[in-house]
Amino acid sequence: MSTAIPERLLLGPGPSNVSPRVLQALTTPILGHLDPAFLQVMDETMDLLRRVFRTRNELTIPISGTGSAGMEAAIVNMVEPGESMVVAIAGYFGERIAEMARRAGAEVVPARADWGTIVDLQAVEEAVRRSGARVIAAVHVETSTGILQPLPPLVDVARRYDALLLVDAVASLGGVPLDVDELGIDVCYSASQKCLSVPPGLAPLTASARARARMAERRTKVQSWYLDLSMLQTYWGTERIYHHTAPVTMIYGLREGLRLVVEEGLEARWERHRRAAQTLWQGLQRLGLRLYVPEEQRAPTLTTVAVPVGVDDLAVRRRLLQDHNIEIAGGLGPLRGKVFRIGLMGEGSTAGNVHTFLAAFDAALRAEGWRAA
Amino acid sequence: MSTAIPERLLLGPGPSNVSPRVLQALTTPILGHLDPAFLQVMDETMDLLRRVFRTRNELTIPISGTGSAGMEAAIVNMVEPGESMVVAIAGYFGERIAEMARRAGAEVVPARADWGTIVDLQAVEEAVRRSGARVIAAVHVETSTGILQPLPPLVDVARRYDALLLVDAVASLGGVPLDVDELGIDVCYSASQKCLSVPPGLAPLTASARARARMAERRTKVQSWYLDLSMLQTYWGTERIYHHTAPVTMIYGLREGLRLVVEEGLEARWERHRRAAQTLWQGLQRLGLRLYVPEEQRAPTLTTVAVPVGVDDLAVRRRLLQDHNIEIAGGLGPLRGKVFRIGLMGEGSTAGNVHTFLAAFDAALRAEGWRAA
Repeated sequence: MSTAIPERLLLGPGPSNVSPRVLQALTTPILGHLDPAFLQVMDETMDLLRRVFRTRNELTIPISGTGSAGMEAAIVNMVEPGESMVVAIAGYFGERIAEMARRAGAEVVPARADWGTIVDLQAVEEAVRRSGARVIAAVHVETSTGILQPLPPLVDVARRYDALLLVDAVASLGGVPLDVDELGIDVCYSASQKCLSVPPGLAPLTASARARARMAERRTKVQSWYLDLSMLQTYWGTERIYHHTAPVTMIYGLREGLRLVVEEGLEARWERHRRAAQTLWQGLQRLGLRLYVPEEQRAPTLTTVAVPVGVDDLAVRRRLLQDHNIEIAGGLGPLRGKVFRIGLMGEGSTAGNVHTFLAAFDAALRAEGWRAA
Repeated sequence: MSTAIPERLLLGPGPSNVSPRVLQALTTPILGHLDPAFLQVMDETMDLLRRVFRTRNELTIPISGTGSAGMEAAIVNMVEPGESMVVAIAGYFGERIAEMARRAGAEVVPARADWGTIVDLQAVEEAVRRSGARVIAAVHVETSTGILQPLPPLVDVARRYDALLLVDAVASLGGVPLDVDELGIDVCYSASQKCLSVPPGLAPLTASARARARMAERRTKVQSWYLDLSMLQTYWGTERIYHHTAPVTMIYGLREGLRLVVEEGLEARWERHRRAAQTLWQGLQRLGLRLYVPEEQRAPTLTTVAVPVGVDDLAVRRRLLQDHNIEIAGGLGPLRGKVFRIGLMGEGSTAGNVHTFLAAFDAALRAEGWRAA
């Protein structure tokens, strides 16, 4: 059936490699989406998600779509047409938030930074003050550049201006320290296929009581029926009212992936990601390569490396894939051809994988004509 | 891991039971969404979808969400705010289309029929003439009632008034005769978990050249970034431009499920569904039960049976589930407590399952106090 599918070491920006336990969970017999046995699976999944997000938010569910569906759900539920929304943009995914918000009728007020740096706090505060926006959105780990945006100062701005803070944790949840309740984030979403190491297709999302109060005050219906969080809550909550047929099999997989996270322990997992990243960064520098993001702004889950002058990044990546069965990614937008993107996420974030990768990367670069300085 | 999950015979409105071959396909190693090996999986999947929809439409893809995401994709791409849309409504899912269309800013002009009957053609034509709508939407098999809406007359109206025809084939694709190109349907969407017997989570969708021309003429952006078909086409088409991370594992499962459909042959599969339904209807009538829909309007994939007077439908369904491991469903909306809904979809649509079900249903009804007339 799938004889032609190779086993890749997935070290790109996601999907990451999946544990055999998660793959096995996908073969669990299908249940109806209102079967009492499945309702229990849902309860367990929500409970595990709360532990991984570190929240007590009741509304903590997997959205039935990929990370971008989680992003769209967060946006369309929190803004109404004509409202202002400040978006901290330092890369491709910040731009995506802005684009979705515009499609939802919001007046987007961008607070921009150059790709490869974090967004300046004062730019965000100035945008909020100027626009009176009641929603601020930011990307925790910007997968297009590999920066890690510090969240506490953003929470502080949001509180002082009575704005909601939306955080994109697509490339951080499960791999980077994140405590939704302690920080005071209002809406946080992620994706199954990055640091949680579950196949792509679900977007965990959590919303605070403040966010739900804002939802209850809306004057307009949420433009997306499919992503309407109030309706989704009547299915995932105690009422169990049918909304759409839950993606049962993917939820089995997510539950198993979350169990693995909890068994490892969140702190231990964050530390594993931190250490693997340190090993990678040191190794890349030892090879003579230049990391694109200054160390104090770097995310441990996604590393950008400058493509050396005279080297064709596509040829190197093709060689890595064909000769070594290793996937990494190239740059997006203005970084196209300028950086390699190396992900160390979830199951894949180990010293062993880093060493395997460094040897293959060195060989592939040399085969494509690179000579270290 | 999943020791507590029972093996159910799924005879509700979906999900249906899944072949072991499909479950096995879900354990295929994860590939990146731009891996050449995965691009080939995508090509095969699109090719198989075209065979099952019976279309040569280039834009024939699985939407990354459940059937309702397919419905929302069809609607938000085909209407713009302020435009009229005629919706043929004869049940819960027709109402859902209308609700989504209103949220997309459309002026919905309903052509209604009583639940349990098909929509009258003249009501549709009158609504189109009166409103000048350029889009008509209809549900092929209305899963809330079990009617089968005849499509050729609707196509005829659409052509005469230069309107696009959107068809919800969620509970018909793969189980009921349907030929998108021969009929001349413009947009048709379905769901993975009904007659295709793949786990829930994907919504196959196809759009004609006429529909794509309408998309190209839009004055406004599609309100949903996630469901923007023009952008999705740049990923699924020859350009292969990243949009969102494809749900790789579910696509493996869909591909395998579609292979099973093609191996069986569409005509043979339709005939199997027809025969199983006949067996079910005769058996139910022999028990002395009343079918809710007149025979000439009945869908073979979903049957509604009147709940006998004095019988508690919930108690019967609970008994079927607990004592016999069989899932069927109750009525929705105005049919709540009034009908049972029995699905014979995909893998589950066999004479053997019908006989198993009839014996269990008879026993459960009697245990709940029913005495046949």
